[in-house]
This record gives sequence, C-alpha cells and structure tokens, in this order.
Amino acid sequence: MPTALRRTKRLLFGRPLPSDRLDHEKLSRKTALAVLSSDAISSVAYATEQILLVLAVLGTVALSHVVGISAVIVGLLVLVALSYRQTIFAYPHGGGSYTVARENLGVMPGLIAAAALLTDYILTVAVSISAGVAAITSAYPALAPHAVLVCIAATFLLMTVNLRGVRESGIAFSVPTYVFIALMLLLIGVGVYRGVLGHELAPAGPMRIDPVSAHHAGIPVGFAFTFLILRAFAEGCVAMTGTEAISNGVGAFKAPSARNAAATLSWMAAILAVFFMGTSWLAQHYQVMPSPTETVLSQLGRHIFGGSFLYYALQYATFALLVLAANTAFADFPRLSSILAHDGYMPRQFAARGDRLAFSNGIIALAVVAMLLVWAFRGDTSALIPLYAIGVFVCFTLSQAGMVMKWRRTRAPGWRWRALLNGVGAVATAVVAIVQVATKFTSGAWIVVVIIPLIILVLAKIERHYAFFSREVQYTGHAPLMFMHHTVVVPVNGITKPTAGALVYATTISEDVRAIYVEVDPEATQRLQAAWTEWDVGVELTVLASPYRSVIRPIVDYVQSTLKAGTSDLVTVVVAEVVPRHWWEHLLHNKTALFVKTAFLFKPNVVVTSVPYLLGHAVRLGDLMHFDELPNSESVAQNA
Amino acid sequence: MPTALRRTKRLLFGRPLPSDRLDHEKLSRKTALAVLSSDAISSVAYATEQILLVLAVLGTVALSHVVGISAVIVGLLVLVALSYRQTIFAYPHGGGSYTVARENLGVMPGLIAAAALLTDYILTVAVSISAGVAAITSAYPALAPHAVLVCIAATFLLMTVNLRGVRESGIAFSVPTYVFIALMLLLIGVGVYRGVLGHELAPAGPMRIDPVSAHHAGIPVGFAFTFLILRAFAEGCVAMTGTEAISNGVGAFKAPSARNAAATLSWMAAILAVFFMGTSWLAQHYQVMPSPTETVLSQLGRHIFGGSFLYYALQYATFALLVLAANTAFADFPRLSSILAHDGYMPRQFAARGDRLAFSNGIIALAVVAMLLVWAFRGDTSALIPLYAIGVFVCFTLSQAGMVMKWRRTRAPGWRWRALLNGVGAVATAVVAIVQVATKFTSGAWIVVVIIPLIILVLAKIERHYAFFSREVQYTGHAPLMFMHHTVVVPVNGITKPTAGALVYATTISEDVRAIYVEVDPEATQRLQAAWTEWDVGVELTVLASPYRSVIRPIVDYVQSTLKAGTSDLVTVVVAEVVPRHWWEHLLHNKTALFVKTAFLFKPNVVVTSVPYLLGHAVRLGDLMHFDELPNSESVAQNA
Repeated sequence: MPTALRRTKRLLFGRPLPSDRLDHEKLSRKTALAVLSSDAISSVAYATEQILLVLAVLGTVALSHVVGISAVIVGLLVLVALSYRQTIFAYPHGGGSYTVARENLGVMPGLIAAAALLTDYILTVAVSISAGVAAITSAYPALAPHAVLVCIAATFLLMTVNLRGVRESGIAFSVPTYVFIALMLLLIGVGVYRGVLGHELAPAGPMRIDPVSAHHAGIPVGFAFTFLILRAFAEGCVAMTGTEAISNGVGAFKAPSARNAAATLSWMAAILAVFFMGTSWLAQHYQVMPSPTETVLSQLGRHIFGGSFLYYALQYATFALLVLAANTAFADFPRLSSILAHDGYMPRQFAARGDRLAFSNGIIALAVVAMLLVWAFRGDTSALIPLYAIGVFVCFTLSQAGMVMKWRRTRAPGWRWRALLNGVGAVATAVVAIVQVATKFTSGAWIVVVIIPLIILVLAKIERHYAFFSREVQYTGHAPLMFMHHTVVVPVNGITKPTAGALVYATTISEDVRAIYVEVDPEATQRLQAAWTEWDVGVELTVLASPYRSVIRPIVDYVQSTLKAGTSDLVTVVVAEVVPRHWWEHLLHNKTALFVKTAFLFKPNVVVTSVPYLLGHAVRLGDLMHFDELPNSESVAQNA
Repeated sequence: MPTALRRTKRLLFGRPLPSDRLDHEKLSRKTALAVLSSDAISSVAYATEQILLVLAVLGTVALSHVVGISAVIVGLLVLVALSYRQTIFAYPHGGGSYTVARENLGVMPGLIAAAALLTDYILTVAVSISAGVAAITSAYPALAPHAVLVCIAATFLLMTVNLRGVRESGIAFSVPTYVFIALMLLLIGVGVYRGVLGHELAPAGPMRIDPVSAHHAGIPVGFAFTFLILRAFAEGCVAMTGTEAISNGVGAFKAPSARNAAATLSWMAAILAVFFMGTSWLAQHYQVMPSPTETVLSQLGRHIFGGSFLYYALQYATFALLVLAANTAFADFPRLSSILAHDGYMPRQFAARGDRLAFSNGIIALAVVAMLLVWAFRGDTSALIPLYAIGVFVCFTLSQAGMVMKWRRTRAPGWRWRALLNGVGAVATAVVAIVQVATKFTSGAWIVVVIIPLIILVLAKIERHYAFFSREVQYTGHAPLMFMHHTVVVPVNGITKPTAGALVYATTISEDVRAIYVEVDPEATQRLQAAWTEWDVGVELTVLASPYRSVIRPIVDYVQSTLKAGTSDLVTVVVAEVVPRHWWEHLLHNKTALFVKTAFLFKPNVVVTSVPYLLGHAVRLGDLMHFDELPNSESVAQNA
C-alpha cells in the first residue's frame, strides 16, 4: 500500500491491534446498556408518532387510542424480554435468532432468521439515522433540505468509528445515552406533573368512540376501523425492535457475561416501557398531532420545556441516541455476517477481523447498503418504517420456537414452564408478524416479503459453492510424484534489459529454455537474428510467423504444439513486464503480459510468469545479472 | 476470448485478414472521389447556410452578400487546391500537413499541425453526422426530437463499417456520392434555368446596401458591419474543410498514385466550386432564410423540386454523403494516429493494424470522442461549426509554409514559381486562420484555442516517456551471466489439490523449496503440522506467526529476510490460484494470489507465480502429478 494511503488509514482507524488484545475489548454493564440497548430505547423517538400517524386517519378523537395500543405493546415487550432472559442463560456465548433457530429447528428456519436479521440490521441503521436527523431538523428547520446529506455523513462517521474497534466506540457513545435517559425522565416527570396536577393546560379527557355517533361523524367503523387499529398497533410495534440485541451480544459482556446481560436486558425493558408509555400518554394528553416538519417528541419537548436550553438538549440527545442505535447494528450485522461466513453462507471475507479487531468488511457492507437505502427513501423515517419490524418479529418467533424445542430436548429443571413461556411468546410474536405483513403490505412491507427469500436464495447458493469447492480441492492420498519435463518459453521483442531479465529467470528455473519472436516485419527479424547470434546468450531464438498480425496467437499455438508433441509435461511462459512509474504510463504500453496470461488462463499445464522490470528504480532483477556492459557495443531494442 | 464474443465480432467485423492482402485494399479514382472528396463536397450542405445565419443579423437585404462572399471563398479554394497539387507530387506516399510541417519546419510546427488535424477529424465526424441528420429531420420533422440518438447510431454504424476494412467501405459508399452529385447538378440546373429564364418566381434582384440608408434602416455600419461580413466569410470557409484529405491519402490510391490523386483533387475542387456557388446563388435568388427546423438546402430542394420524389432523394443523398464525409475522418484520423504512434507521440496501440487490416484503436477512439461531442452539443450543427475550420486553416498554412521551405531547399525545376504559389497560399490561409479565431472566438472558437495546445502538451509528454523508456531498457553489452541461488516459497493453507499443484511446480523449478503457513489459529496449526509430517511431501513446512491477522505481511517479511540473509539471490513466491467457473464465485474467495502479487510488485529480486487450479475442469496441472489416491486416507483441507 502506498505510504500516503497507509497514513490516512492510520489517522482514521488507528494503529493495527494484535490479536491478543481481543479479550480486553469487552463491555461493562453500563457501557453495554449504552451500546446494546440504545436501539430499543431510541424507538420512543418514533414509535408513538407512527401510531398517531395511522390514528390521524380516524380523526382527532381516535388519537385517544394511542395509550391503549401502547399498553398492549408494552405487555408484548415484557413477554418477549422474559423469553429472551431464558435465551441468555441457555446461550451464554451469544444466542442470536440465527444460532437458536438453526440449532433447534434446522437449516431453513436458521436461514430465514438470518435473512430477516440482515434485513433488519440494515433498516435499523437507515431508520435510526433518518429519525435522528429528523430530531435535528425539527429544532433547525433550515437544515431540512440537507437531511439526506446529513444522514449519509452520519452513517459514514459511524462506519469509521466502528472500523476503529468495539471498546472505543462504547466509551465514545456512553455519555449521550445517559443524558437522553435523564432528559426523558425529566420530560415525562414534568409533563405528567403539569398534566395531572397543574392546570396550565387542561387535558381534553378520555373520550370513548360511540360506534353510532362515529358512523354519523364519518369515522370508519367495523372492518375498516379494526384494520386501522391493527395497523396502528403494527406500526407501534417498531418500539420493540432491538430487544434481541442483548441476547445476540452476550459474548461481548464482561464476565459473568450471562448474568450481566440478563440484568442489562431487564433494565432496558423497564426503561423502554416507561418512556414509551410516558410519551404516548403525553401525546394523548397534550393532543399532539403528527407533522411532516416536526417530530412528536420535539413537539412535546417544545411544549413542556418551552424554547429553553432543555429542549435543544433533548433534541441533541435524541439524535445522539439514535446514532447509537444505528451503532447497535454496526456491532450485530458484522458479527452475524462473520458467523454466517464461518458456516459457509456468506463470503469468507466477512469472517476475518481486520487490523483493529473489528469485522471490517461487514461494517463497510452495512454502511454502504444503509446509505443507499436512506438515499433511495430520501431520508424519510415514515416511509422506511413499514419495512421495519417485520423481520424482527419473524426472528422473535423463530428464536422462541427454537427455545421451546430446546427445552423439550434437554428437559432441564423447570423445562415445562420455561417451554410454556417461550411457547406463548412464540405464538404471540407470530401473530404480530402476520398482522405486520397484512396491514403494512401495500405501504412497503411487500419489499421485505420479496427481499428476505432473495437473501435466503443467495445464502444457499454461496453455501453450495463452498461445498462444491471443498469437495473439489480435497486431497486424499500420498504425496504427489514430482518428476516432469519442464519447458520454458520466453517471448522476446528485442535485446533489452527486461528481456535479459526474463531470460536470466528462465534459465534459472529450467534447462530447456526457448526464446520466441513473433515476426511482424521481416526486416526487423533479420536485424534481430543477427544481433541475437552476436549476443550469444546461450538460448536459441525461434521466429514465429504471424500472418494475422496477432502477437498472442502464435505464442499460444507454439506452446500448445510443444505440449502436444509430448516432449514436455509442463510449459512456463516467462514474460518480461515493464512496471511504469506513473499510472498513465500503463496506457502507453501494450499489456502483453496480461494478454498472454489471459490467453492461457483456461489451458491446462501452462503457467505464465511475469518478471517485473521497474522503470526508474535503482534495483531490480536485471541488476542481479552482473551485466558486463561494453560502451561501444550496439543496442538492438524494439518496442516492448 | 469466449466463443460467443468471438462469433459476434466475426459477424460485425468479418473474418481476420492476413497481412499480405494489404496491397489489395487500394482505391480507384472513382472510389477515391467518393471516399476522400465527400468531406469537401458535402460542405455545401451547411456552408451557405452558415453565411446566411450571420448575414441575417444585418437584415434581409444583406443576404445578397452571400454570392460575393462565396466567390471569395471559391477563389481561396482554387488557390489551396493548386497548392496541394504540388504537395501530392512532392509526397507521393501521402503528404499530410503533419508530415510536411515536421519534415520542413521542425518538430513543434509538426505537432501543431498534428493537434490541429486530430481536432478537425473529430469535428468532421461530429459536424457531418449532425448536418446529415439535420437533412433527414428537415424532411421528417417528427424525427427531430430523436436527432442526437440518430447521430450516435450513425457514428456507431460508421465505426463498425470501418473496423471491417478500407475497401469494403469504399464500395459501400460510392453510390450515394454519385447520386448526390447528379441530384445537385439537377437542382442547380433547374433552379438557375427557372430563375434566369422562367418567370415562375421573379428574383428580388441584386440589391446594393447604401451606407446612408442602411444607417437609417438600423443596419450596423462601419466596424460592426465589417466584422459581421468577416464573420460570415469565416463561417463560410467551412466549405473548404476536407480539401487536404486527398493529399493526405495519396498512399491509398491505385498506382500511379500521385497522378490519380492529383486528377481526383482537380475534379473535387471543380465540383465543390460549382455546387457551393450554385447553392449560394439559388439561396440569394429565391431569398431563402435560414431556419432552425429546416436546412437551407432542404428549403431549396422543396421549392425547386416541389414535394416530389426528387426532393426526398436529395435529402437522403445529402444524409448519405455527409455520413461518407464523416467516413473520411475515419480513414484519416487512424492513419495520422498510426504515424504519430510510430513517431512516439501517441500510444503504441494506435500503430498496429487490427484483424481486418484497419487501425482499429484509432477508429474506436475517433468514434467515441465524436459521439461524446455530438451528445454534448445536442447534435446542433450551427453550435459545432464555430469550432470547425480553424484547425483546417492552421494546417493549410503550416503545410504550404513547409512546401515553401522544401522548394527553397531542393531547388527542383521551377522551384521559384512553385514556392511563390505555396507562399501566396500560406499567407492567404494564415490571414483566414486569424480571421477565424478573431471573429468566432466568443461563439466557440476559444474551445479549439484551448484544446490544441493541450493536445500538443500530451503528445510531447508521451514522446518524453517513450524516449525515457527506450533509454532505460537499452541493453548494451555481452550476454548476462546466469548463475544464482534461487529459492521458492510456497504459501500453503492446508493439504489441498491446488496446494499440491503449487508444490509440484515449485519443486520443478528449484531445489530449494519452502512451504510456509501463516498461523491464525494455533489449534489449526497443530492439526496441519501432524498431517504434513504424515504426508511426507519432501518439503519442510515453516509456520509464521501473524499477531495482526494479516496473511500477506508475514509472507513479505519472510521473503525479505531470506533475501537479506544473502543465501538467496532470487525468490519466487508460488501461489496456488483457484480459477472459478463463474464470475460471481470470484467474490467468494480471498484473492490471496492477487494480494501477494501486489505486495511484491515494487520489491526487487522477487517473482510471483500463480499456478492456476481450474475448478470443475477435467484436466489441470494437478492431474500431471500422478496422485496416488488411497480411499481410506484422511483429508486435511482448509479454506483457500
């Protein structure tokens, strides 16, 4: 790598870390709560808003359903959290949905979970970054036209931080999470206090929708009403995304990792439940309407905190937390990719840790796809959300169903009630997944329904290739016999230093060396023949005719006929390759070495070697040859 | 090359032609008139119109100046044609401006001529194709919105025809030229007969511009008037472009080539003079005004021929002739590029003839640049014309000035009056070149003024590189001594067939072979060590630590330390390279061979050889090794 490039890389990503520092990059409870729970907690920034957006169709009065729907979702959250607590203890090294489903349900459910997870990690980045930037543009509407650019810059920054390594990103992101938690507690505290006890803004009070009067008022009833309430519920379920992050990442916790992870999961669920219910109650109480230019949370903050410092702090903290939520995916996506690569379902390049112990290729892939997605959806959170959460609920279902099978198999103490808990969770989340697809299908969910099977197809195809490859290269038997007649062919185009270097190399690797010259101009041939004889290099020059002016075909034909004659088992074509000093100089030379290599790529028993000759460098193969230069001898050099 | 690709190539460009068919591809006088004069003759399709476009600014009465201006241009044409007759006999193998200027005036004038010519050939294609398509859209206005697309398709077609070879393009294009000549004679004949003798449409009669009344009528006088008349003259000079084509292409004529070329030049000049004067007279007589939707020639044709078959025939013939004019550049540009490449000013790839004896790279380069130009100028002839003709007049001047020097040097019989003729021509065309730049500078000529020096810079830079290269590789002296200690290093990643192939190759080319294994996981190392000992391949396995998980760095360090130790003069790194069956499979394998090659690219005394292992193919290097397979032996294979 050129020095300048390496320096830039150092500056951005830091010095390479040795492998033995891997154990040091583990997370404490507090840091883990910041790094791994942010995805779940940050969803309060948009979940309530998504419910309100659907309910707004039903008219202002219907907005009062937001608290009820939120309460159902919180109930579901508690169920899923309890379910995942069991997974943490059963899989102390990290029990992602893929691992659990593959181990307990089989390969195909595992692949479905994997595809759903990969999709959701990408959407986590896209949705979180978009929602984070929406928090900023709510405070500064002038920035709104540049939202997409800001989203892409933020994703790029996240990528860079993650390429530097796990622990440093933990430290860098802990503070904003706790600031957000403090500000949200303050917002809810002040908001509830004023709303319930104060008289500053009297609540509208709970309203019941009377089906008869609703009908008169033009509000949809019956099926349409039910559908919209279900749709609002489905959209609100986005609050639960990220709940699985902790059980996926048990391995990243400090020891005792399972206990630490379980405690962190409980804290996370509690915080999320309070914040989500609090936001929904405040939104209903203060009759906040969703708006395309300002988020619901921003409206609440502006109202409760006024235009004070606290309001701006809340917006910044929301942005920071959502960036941190996106960061969760930057931990999870590469880790899952690495596991999949290890199992042969993803390219091997995803399996290895980079210079800084991070799974560099996974991080880069995630960032690139997420940026494309944000760009395609113009950074609009509400447009991205219908795609989101489906994959998460598919994973919840598969993971818990896997756990049920595991309890039935292992029959550990208390397996019956544990299986029951996971079973109830599996059924509940399966129902929600179906509701998600059914109610959001036309507004974007169909994309996920198309993409997940496509990903599964690709994963399976990759696995088939690796299996084929592994069979193909498998070597069973004794050591090979190593005797064969080896002929070396050196295409020459004149007596030049690169040619001399190639000839020296050729005579070093074989006794049977033949220099060949492709004739284009008979006069030039005669001159070369004469000079060659005088040069007396000990290698005979063979001239090949080229009626069609091709330089490559006569060489290929010569090599093929040598092999067919049966006197050689193996032919090496040694080509002198000039390495220019500047990239543009490549355009000025016929890439003979490259063409020769391409011509023989699928021909058996032929190896092409290029002997590099570095233009303008002091030392090179040629200098090894102890050139015995005579100043008065004539140079016979043609174009290379 | 894959079979499908080769078949398509055959279909488009025909079978390869052997070099000895080169002499057969010569042009007869009649074919040469069609192929080489079309550029000049076809300019009647737009030259008169360009004069009218400028004069229109002065008002309707000023249009009567078109005949006077055209007469001056025809005078200039006769002078230049006489001048070039002398060049043809002085340079019977083809005396392009570049050759004449370089030989008689020096390198820099030669390069100026070359740069001007290259620019003009590209503009010939762009202008002719645009004007040709304008002839069609004049007849069929519905096609106008697709003009750019039609232009690009026509250029592509021309490229294809030219890649097939010279003679076939001559035959394919002869008919439309003679049809055009016949139709133009008919148009001018009928038009003049009706205009002078008939009474069907009385001519407006010649009008004199009275400076005083002109002033009153708001017509510019004094400097502005002179400037616009000069500008109209400069634009009309576009009629003379292509005059040099015949003297450039003397070598393409059948013997006696000089006499044939001179006769063809005379015919061409005569035809052009008659057509240009005729068109201008008709335009003035019938008071045709330039229009953005219909060409002047089309208006004349529509008026004189009515809406008859003859009108459509004229439009088609104009289109065909203009395509043929563009074709002139497809003969000249690659020929000049080839000469420049031979002299070291352009990349060598332009020097060689392709399969079909055409200079393929020059043809493709011309087509691509011309298409980009047409696309950038939206196929608008009038926007392209100001860029045109400047280069041509620069070349006229340099070429004739060169001839003056030649006559003074050689003092051949009659050299005085010959030098005088060329001298007068040189001065006249130099004045015109200055007028061109001065009057058209702001309307596009500045682009040419910028681009020609840039091209000269690039040509000179290329020449410097080739000179450096030629010095650098020059070999003067006796044959090199060929004794050195050669060590071969084989990076292995398990006992697989590709690895076995690499080891067989390594032991074939040296006695000193070392297998090296980069350790990432110590457990895997132990398994491999044990299997390696059992395998007993005769090559020792060296394990290299890799604390930073890089596969390449330990290999580089090992090779460097081997060379530094002084026991080896030369190291070859033999890498097994898996060649997949499908392109996408490349993504699934770490490109170790490529990375190793890149890592050693600038390291002296190291050669990297990849031994290909073809997945899914029946025969390969490995099969030469007489594998003694034992069905019950265990396979130890890792990932490649």
